[in-house]
Amino acid sequence: MSKVVCEISMSLDGFITGPNVRVGNGMGDGGDRLHDWMFGAKTTTDAKFVDDKFASTGAVVMGKRMFDVGFEPWGDPPPFRMPVFVVTHEERDPLPMQGGTTYTFVTDGIEAALELARAAADDKNVGVWGGANIIRQYLEAGLLDEMQIQLIPILLGNGIRLFEGLDPEGIELRRTSSIETPAATHFRFEVVKTS
Amino acid sequence: MSKVVCEISMSLDGFITGPNVRVGNGMGDGGDRLHDWMFGAKTTTDAKFVDDKFASTGAVVMGKRMFDVGFEPWGDPPPFRMPVFVVTHEERDPLPMQGGTTYTFVTDGIEAALELARAAADDKNVGVWGGANIIRQYLEAGLLDEMQIQLIPILLGNGIRLFEGLDPEGIELRRTSSIETPAATHFRFEVVKTS
Repeated sequence: MSKVVCEISMSLDGFITGPNVRVGNGMGDGGDRLHDWMFGAKTTTDAKFVDDKFASTGAVVMGKRMFDVGFEPWGDPPPFRMPVFVVTHEERDPLPMQGGTTYTFVTDGIEAALELARAAADDKNVGVWGGANIIRQYLEAGLLDEMQIQLIPILLGNGIRLFEGLDPEGIELRRTSSIETPAATHFRFEVVKTS
Repeated sequence: MSKVVCEISMSLDGFITGPNVRVGNGMGDGGDRLHDWMFGAKTTTDAKFVDDKFASTGAVVMGKRMFDVGFEPWGDPPPFRMPVFVVTHEERDPLPMQGGTTYTFVTDGIEAALELARAAADDKNVGVWGGANIIRQYLEAGLLDEMQIQLIPILLGNGIRLFEGLDPEGIELRRTSSIETPAATHFRFEVVKTS
């Protein structure tokens, strides 16, 4: 069955970016190290995680801030190659890109974005790929089925925290898998709804 | 060779206690779940971590806040059964307890406490067992050789963060081991000093 799965890389001290995130510095100062496992330090195991993620996902939901800082570096064709729904307050026409990605801007909230993404994903998963704020919103709303977190053994000291201000009431995690590669621990948690 | 090793249990969202830590609520609201791996959910693998920790450690350093909230629940004899050095601003006579623990209060800083602990530990390790503030101080001062962190797959939402306000400049971690048990991921990191 189709699941709603968040996927994000987090430092040991809880950050998903370094400080000073802005257009042109999308991962913040030093934050690119969070993605070493996908680039310079990539092993065949890491590569399989990326491949599986893309193969199992039929549509992506993301926040506006992530879209704003990611748009330029992702380029055209963007790496998604599937429909992407951007949760935003700004009305905007859909933006078709090369290679199968269309950015669709959803102004009526996370549930509406999820509904559109589910329809677009067919029987594949919906990926909630960031940033932190949108992941927290889906988690708190009980809409996430699974969290895939790459824990990266670095300390960033500052930046955007994945779980900043989270209200964990009623959210339990069940660790279903944990695989080590040199640059990451690939955790998979089932989100168990207790309330 | 004798090492300086911190050891602490941290939630996935970075907390080593729940909120509202005080005397009588030493782990904060819900924070006892961080130690399930040592109690209700303990496996033989978890037990071996505890046994190895006590066997390899010859003296413990802790912060005053941890001492204050821990003193009563630890009881007499306390579980340490070795010398414990409490970093504090308050002059106070050593407090010998039953079973080999003596609490010694050190008022001239973390380096002085470490020197005393090293002497007391002979060729065994010095354990920096908390709280967060004292661990951060030793880490930032380049005095920690190893961090043993049990990552606990729970979300606390609030409490005391292990890495709050850390300046990670010059601190690199090398993950040397990672072992899963149902209630914890037992990480061991070597602290690599780069500056």
